[in-house]
Order: sequence, then structure tokens, then C-alpha cells
Amino acid sequence: MKIAVIKEIYPGETRVALIPANVSKLTQAGLTIAVERGAGEAAGFDDERYVEAGAVIAADRTEALKDAEVVLTHHGRGDELDALLPHLTRGQTLVAMMDPLAGPQAAQKLADAGINGVALELVPRITRAQAMDVLSSNATIAGYKAALLGATHSHQLFPMMMTAAGTLKPARVFIMGVGVAGLQACATAKRLGAVVEAYDIRPAAREQILSVGARPVELNIEAEDTETSGGYAKEQSAEFIAKQQQAMADVLAQQDVVITTAAIPGRKAPVLITEAQLMQMKPGAVIIDLAAETGGNCELTEAGQTVIHHGVTIIGPKNFAATVPNHASQMFGTNLTNLLMLMAKEGKINWDFEDEIIRDVTVSKDGEVVNPRLRELLGLP
Amino acid sequence: MKIAVIKEIYPGETRVALIPANVSKLTQAGLTIAVERGAGEAAGFDDERYVEAGAVIAADRTEALKDAEVVLTHHGRGDELDALLPHLTRGQTLVAMMDPLAGPQAAQKLADAGINGVALELVPRITRAQAMDVLSSNATIAGYKAALLGATHSHQLFPMMMTAAGTLKPARVFIMGVGVAGLQACATAKRLGAVVEAYDIRPAAREQILSVGARPVELNIEAEDTETSGGYAKEQSAEFIAKQQQAMADVLAQQDVVITTAAIPGRKAPVLITEAQLMQMKPGAVIIDLAAETGGNCELTEAGQTVIHHGVTIIGPKNFAATVPNHASQMFGTNLTNLLMLMAKEGKINWDFEDEIIRDVTVSKDGEVVNPRLRELLGLP
Repeated sequence: MKIAVIKEIYPGETRVALIPANVSKLTQAGLTIAVERGAGEAAGFDDERYVEAGAVIAADRTEALKDAEVVLTHHGRGDELDALLPHLTRGQTLVAMMDPLAGPQAAQKLADAGINGVALELVPRITRAQAMDVLSSNATIAGYKAALLGATHSHQLFPMMMTAAGTLKPARVFIMGVGVAGLQACATAKRLGAVVEAYDIRPAAREQILSVGARPVELNIEAEDTETSGGYAKEQSAEFIAKQQQAMADVLAQQDVVITTAAIPGRKAPVLITEAQLMQMKPGAVIIDLAAETGGNCELTEAGQTVIHHGVTIIGPKNFAATVPNHASQMFGTNLTNLLMLMAKEGKINWDFEDEIIRDVTVSKDGEVVNPRLRELLGLP
Repeated sequence: MKIAVIKEIYPGETRVALIPANVSKLTQAGLTIAVERGAGEAAGFDDERYVEAGAVIAADRTEALKDAEVVLTHHGRGDELDALLPHLTRGQTLVAMMDPLAGPQAAQKLADAGINGVALELVPRITRAQAMDVLSSNATIAGYKAALLGATHSHQLFPMMMTAAGTLKPARVFIMGVGVAGLQACATAKRLGAVVEAYDIRPAAREQILSVGARPVELNIEAEDTETSGGYAKEQSAEFIAKQQQAMADVLAQQDVVITTAAIPGRKAPVLITEAQLMQMKPGAVIIDLAAETGGNCELTEAGQTVIHHGVTIIGPKNFAATVPNHASQMFGTNLTNLLMLMAKEGKINWDFEDEIIRDVTVSKDGEVVNPRLRELLGLP
């Protein structure tokens, strides 16, 4: 069974879908890996290392894709999917990020082209699937980089410093939303010596916040039923969000850096910082909005831009994991390797829909959209 | 005695020469502080806070300077000095950074205009003067920010991470030159979890490197007489530097991030990384060159620019302390306050040249360049 790793199509993308260590593991399991020439270069992995690991280097995309059963890439939606589709042939399987809940049309396009689609966002949040969870990998990187970006733009040093020029107070950092990204942001800001507080509407987050040395902020607003069975924060009513925003303003007014991470799969991100709240923040404060790509947790965020409003700097990073291409490729590639080791059986993809993981990630199969959530979103019976 | 704090003239400067806490201390000592309107705004200190601390807000630069005995600013050289000089009157004292050893012409200009010049770089490196040492303050900030900048541009996460997607190896960070900036860079990279190594030609640096948890790199090249009486690294012979560069290439080839900090007061920075050495570094590696403004420790550095050469990113920051305006202003202002408390006596500047500090920092007085080192540089008898 041939697996194709193509050079990423997304503009400026520096990552690659498999690293040489992944190739070793997969070839030992009997798979053939074709890597498009130079695919790993920007992530620090040159063609020679892929060859040493057992891969075949393909001169171009066409050669990489020829007779491949499975095609691996980071971006399998939008312009990148449109660019890739003409190169794919019926019966091939595409494994990629597809943002399927926000854009189920990608699944329809794949079905129409007879391509079997595997959307990595749909890996279920169960213990057995953790090692395949690309969203967690990306969130780990995003949380770490958010803390660094906050420190870089802060008008204060993060650590307390006792210098000959007096004592510098540590910076105050506040994390809103404590999933994988939020916890990693807490841990990194703490490593740097900041005073770190965090908030999440899920009461279970309290222990997690404490576990990384940060202080949980309580707003004394009752919330019920805040966590989905999948462990995501559940969407709240408009009334609850308004109360939460009001109580939050005082907390925000004290911070030097705020990192927001609240996302709801397939939906626009909730607004956690309104313009009115921002106006009460310290001039010179910094907001890092990790939900920028899904509309932003701050009303003034612009994805991929840095905005200064009322003295507050609002940064909305895009494709953040790609800023750490080496380690991000390692994590993504290891996630994919673990998924492939589950799905490949006797030289073929084993479409065993009794397996929760395989069933959940498959968006299209044999010309049909097969995932029930996507069928519903697409208005299919 | 009136002290004037002007709005900085240097383009993009965000710092201010005194913060409100400094104003309190100086007014309690009987000094009058005039602050130009909005001077502290970009550093997070608005006019009201200066007034509360006892300052008078001046409507513009002219009003701030009128009848002031002492004028405080960050940049007292080059274009900024030329812009300021027409506003100053004979007998006034200007306290600022003047880079006097590299540019003694500033002292001559001040003498010609009858301005008494106090160059903050000339604070002697003695225990009693530590609390006035602006270079140390700026170096503390530069070292911290260099580690952050390195982490931000690194293709690796700094800390080792044990994730569901496998174990990520920590980044390797190498610090060249371990003065105040280098030690702070070591400490910050260590905080972030990197594997940190450091090198300095002064054998005494070994203990300092170990004290912040980094590993000293030995090159097995004999060097003698490496430290000046003032505690700076002494300039070495071309032969020594060539040997050092050769032995360094192997060390550099293993690093993910390199931070260089080698400066010689008044001279062009020594080249520590040649193009040939850089070509042997890992693609994706990052160099942060803190000597960029004095010519750079890497041959390919361009001050204020980011250059990518042979896959290595070379960043040469300019006016780096200004990127942390709040804390940088606090440190600078505290240094100046301590110096003023020494120099002000009974409502006048006490030009007591028996005091080593006052003697060393004074570059011009009563129409003459008075500092012997500067007189020599200017060819004066």
C-alpha cells in the first residue's frame, strides 16, 4: 500500500505530514511511503533523511500521487482542496485537516470525486484516540506560542526581577478558556515567571488550572451543563455570556496580557472580550486571541493581524502551529502514523465502522458523505 | 532646582526618562520635576499619575526646558542631540545615553554649546554605582528579550514535552558572551526549558554560567588577560579570534538558537560567527545578535533587520530595551534617580570631581570636553 506525502499547498506552510522517524515506523509495518521532493525541507527534514528512513522520493506531486492508496497533507479544504482534487483519482483516500463541521462542503466535494475522506478534526476524544488527536497537538503548540507572543509584546518583563535598579513586579497574565491550549499557555507563562490566573466555564477546569501553578478566577455566576460528553465547553445562552462578560471586565482591567482560547467546534467563537470591556483595560495591555480564525474571542480581533485599539494590542494569529514547523511536523506526523497503524490492515485501508475512531473520522466513502453529523449539516437524508 | 523630562525625540521610542515613582522620590528630596505633556504615555504612565507624584506637566518641550537646570532623555546623540540642542541654553545639564566612546563628537557639540553633558554609559563599574548603571539595566532586558525572540522564531519548542504525540526533545540554545545580557538570556532560555550552553572568553564566566543552570562550553584554546579592570571582556588578537572561530564551528552546528552578546565599549563588535561557520549550522536555526547596533557578532547581521541565509534566520534587534517600555522606563528612571540623588546638593548640581562617579560621567563642563578618554579620542590636548 502506497502512502503519498505531498509538499504542502497552503501559502507559507512550513510543515510536512510525516517526518523521517514516522516513515521508518510505517515502512517497517509494510507500507510504501512516497515523499514529494523537498516536502520536509522547511521543517528541517531533507530528502536524504527520508530516503534513509525508507521512503521513495517522488520528483513532483503527480509522481507522488500516482497509484497511492492514501494521500497525506495538512490542509484538505478550501483553495488547497480545490487545487488538489484534479490530481486525485477515484478510490484514493485523503487524510487531512478539513474543518468539516464549519465547512461540510469539503466532504461533499470528496464524495462527488469518489475520494474517501478522513478528517483529522473528527478523531473522537477517547483515551484510545489521544495519540491520533491532531487538534490537541496543535493546541499544545498554540498555547505555548501564545504565551511567548504575549511576553514578546508585553510592556513588562514576565518574571519578578530584583535588580540594582529596583524590584520589577512580575507581569499579570490571564488565560480565558483552559483546554489543552489554555493549560499550555498557563504553564508557559508560569515558567517565564508571570503571575498567572485563568478562567473556564467548566468547573472541572479548576483542578487543571491549579495543577499548572495558576490561580483559578471565580466569577460567582452559576453555570450548569457546561461540558459536552466529548469534553468540549458547551455553548452557553446569550444571557449567561452577557453576565459573564460583565463580571469579567474587572478582572480584565488588572491584566498585562490576556490569552483567549475559547472555541466551539464548527461554530463561530464566542465573544469573551467586548469593545466596552477592552476600553477598561490598561493601556499597553496585550490580547492574544487564539480563536482568531473562527471569528475571535475579542470583538476587535482581526485574523492574521495586529490591531491596536485604545492602547491595547490585539493579536490574532493564523495557522499558528506552522510557526514551529519542526516540532509541529513531528507531532502531526506521529498522530497520522498512529491513525494509519490503526486503519491499515494487510496492505489496505480497513474501513471497519465498528471501530469508533475509524467511523468518526471518515467523512466520505465510495461516493457518499457517510458521517451522520455532516449529512445533517449538508441537509442530506 | 528644576529637572525637565522631555517626550523622547527618537523615532518610535516608547520609554520615558522618569516614572511617577521616581518623581515622588526626587520631589521629596526638594527637586522640581517638569514633565512634558504625554511623555510617559507610551510606557503606560499618564500625566495624572505624574501630577499625583508631584510633577508639573509642561505643555510642550519649550515650557519643560525653560529654566531647567537638568534635562533628562534617553537619546543624547546623533539626530536626537541635533534636534534638542537649539532648545537648550548655556549652563544647562543634559543627562542621557550618548555612546561617547564611539561618538565623542556629541561631547564636543555639548561643550561648544556650553551644555554640561552627563553620559550614562560612563557610570563606572564599581559597587557603589551599580544602582546607576543604565547599561546593566538595558542588558538585563536585552538578554531576556533575546531568549524570547529566539524561542519565537525557533522551529522547535524550547521545553521537552511528553505528549500523546510522542516526546519532543528540548531545543538547544547557545549563548556567546556571558555578561549581564548573556546571563539573563541563559536564565530565560533555561526557564523555558531549553538545553542551554554558554561560552565566554573570560574564565571567570564559568561559575556565572553554572549559577543560572547552563553548561559552560570549553574550547581548549588558551587565552590570557581576557578581562579589563572594569569587568568587560578585553579585545583579543586576530589570531586568537581566528582559532576561537574555528573551534566554535562544531559547537554552532549543533544549536537550534544562538544568542550573541559580545561588545567592546566604543569599538566595532567582534565577529564571532563568520559566513563559513553559519553555512555549517542547521537549516532552521536562529541567531539573535545583540551586538547588531555596533556592527554585529555575526558577519551577516543587519541592524534592525531579519536576514535568512542558508536556511538560518539572523535577527539584529535595534533599541531593544524600548520593546519593554514600562519596565525599561522603571529601570532607567531608577538609575537616573539614584544618580541625581548623588549629584544634586542644596538645589544645585554638585560637580565634585573627587567623586569617581561624577568625574567619570561628566563629558563636558563649562564649554570644555572634560573627560580625559574623550579628549584623547577627539585629539584634544
